[in-house]
Amino acid sequence: MTGPPPAVAAARRAVRGALSRVDSGALVLVACSGGADSLALAGAAAFAAPRMGLRAGGITVDHGLQDGSGERAAEVVATMRGLGLDPAESAAVHVGAEGGPESAARTARYRALDDAARRLGADAVLLGHTRDDQAETVLLRLARGSGGRSLSGIPQRSGHYLRPLLGLPRTQVHTACADMGLAAWSDPHNSDPAYARSRVRARVMPTLERELGPGVAEALARTSDLLRDDADALDEWADAVQERVRSGTGGDAALDVAALAELPRAVRTRLLRRAAVAAGAPAGALFAVHVAELDRLVSDWRGQAHVDLPGKVRGLRSEGRIAFVGAPGGPEPRGAGPSV
Amino acid sequence: MTGPPPAVAAARRAVRGALSRVDSGALVLVACSGGADSLALAGAAAFAAPRMGLRAGGITVDHGLQDGSGERAAEVVATMRGLGLDPAESAAVHVGAEGGPESAARTARYRALDDAARRLGADAVLLGHTRDDQAETVLLRLARGSGGRSLSGIPQRSGHYLRPLLGLPRTQVHTACADMGLAAWSDPHNSDPAYARSRVRARVMPTLERELGPGVAEALARTSDLLRDDADALDEWADAVQERVRSGTGGDAALDVAALAELPRAVRTRLLRRAAVAAGAPAGALFAVHVAELDRLVSDWRGQAHVDLPGKVRGLRSEGRIAFVGAPGGPEPRGAGPSV
Repeated sequence: MTGPPPAVAAARRAVRGALSRVDSGALVLVACSGGADSLALAGAAAFAAPRMGLRAGGITVDHGLQDGSGERAAEVVATMRGLGLDPAESAAVHVGAEGGPESAARTARYRALDDAARRLGADAVLLGHTRDDQAETVLLRLARGSGGRSLSGIPQRSGHYLRPLLGLPRTQVHTACADMGLAAWSDPHNSDPAYARSRVRARVMPTLERELGPGVAEALARTSDLLRDDADALDEWADAVQERVRSGTGGDAALDVAALAELPRAVRTRLLRRAAVAAGAPAGALFAVHVAELDRLVSDWRGQAHVDLPGKVRGLRSEGRIAFVGAPGGPEPRGAGPSV
Repeated sequence: MTGPPPAVAAARRAVRGALSRVDSGALVLVACSGGADSLALAGAAAFAAPRMGLRAGGITVDHGLQDGSGERAAEVVATMRGLGLDPAESAAVHVGAEGGPESAARTARYRALDDAARRLGADAVLLGHTRDDQAETVLLRLARGSGGRSLSGIPQRSGHYLRPLLGLPRTQVHTACADMGLAAWSDPHNSDPAYARSRVRARVMPTLERELGPGVAEALARTSDLLRDDADALDEWADAVQERVRSGTGGDAALDVAALAELPRAVRTRLLRRAAVAAGAPAGALFAVHVAELDRLVSDWRGQAHVDLPGKVRGLRSEGRIAFVGAPGGPEPRGAGPSV
């Protein structure tokens, strides 16, 4: 008796690892686009889940962005049923425009997956991201000058989302898909150079691998793991001192300058960032440069009047505190500090 | 009356900022290869230092690796004297082979600069690294899968070394050099594709800039600043708990497993790394994978006997402690824990 091909065995092993903490008898849903990564995931989950006392279902999201997307979704559902996933369904979504096409599609997709998990009573949703997706994510965020938390990339687990294949190279996952006899669909978006991620995949990563060695994707993924540990520890530190740094009571988001000044900058900037977001600055628009300006109110104060932040939130220093108020003409931010 | 060209003004301003913490009357030495970066630095320091009550000298290192290097060093000395740097000297070094050609040249160079600073009584040595050097360093380390401290790149200040131009783009520094009327030398090593850094400069960075936007070097440099803050804070945390985690007394490098287990992984791995280095594992050969294996003795212990580390140091778990001993057949490591 021979075992499964090595790539298939690796995919199944990865799924078993990810599912080991799911309660027996639960339903897990595979999010499957019909691409090679998520098809391999579907095949591995269909094999592994029942052997672990779990039920495996599948869901495919029809973004409605391409002609024939409905027919393709129906084919993916048929493939998932053929693998034994039950239930296997498609969910049609409307993709808006906010934040650009990639971001809008992602928002719509996760909303549909959340809805499906709730409706079908699933404990976990499995996503087909590979180590190469992780490397591409780290590179994209590096190119934006992001800090440690952002560079820590895609987590293996976030809420009910699990990414069993995050440690496997994409080539291996594609081999697994082919070895399972599954015909994958190639999303034309993935090779459309209009998207930054496609350019990273088709042009940047090959250049890095050629010039710096074939282990670059693995190295980037390893870096992101180390940086995630660092970011977790620093968040823990910020949690531990948050109450001590808070100045005043109630919904007041003001922070005590003297207490902030005693902290290392990495912790101080985390607390300033949190307070700004609590006061209504949109997290996605609040960049490191904004937080650095806020920090100068503490670490390099020369009488600056205030710092204007996205979301019409203004940070200012007054009476030994950093407070957040609405910028003139802007709407009152959520959870704002008192006017000064 | 017109001011200096903008690039020259920027270089002088950067030097003034870096020298603002040097004691009045002190000598600062510019390390100058004759390349455009360090020539611009020499010109800016020759202008700025006397106006700040400082003396500026210059030193060029003759690596003896190329024909005519001695003559070139003499030319650089003449240029530095022409700028008013006094003293202006060259130092010939012997480049060994250890760690590869780039590393051996760097080691010899810094040793010569340290010697010159001591001999001439200089308080600081100025180096001509630019923002692009920083970006290249971050990319090279990323490709090795390094952690946060390593990715924090080149510091603006380390010991008596100052890098005034680290925030300026290389193109601007080159413009400053030309605007000062200084003829720069192009080190053929900098464009030799045998060196990883040359490939990053000539091939990787242009690809990143083309595919991801022209701000990539700046973004990488900004990332390294943020990661340096993170690494500083985590080192501070490790410092604060180091004594509490130590198990036993005297030269004993053993660590208490229960105390380690309470710490977040980023802090725990820092303590394990420090203990391994104190026990004789060479810091430069101790990689994240080694430390991760050590950490498994704490966080994922299934009776593993021990972990063998570079430098013939062995980490092992015994009686609730992580101890470090010499690996069989190896020399007794420095500061080793007791044999168990």
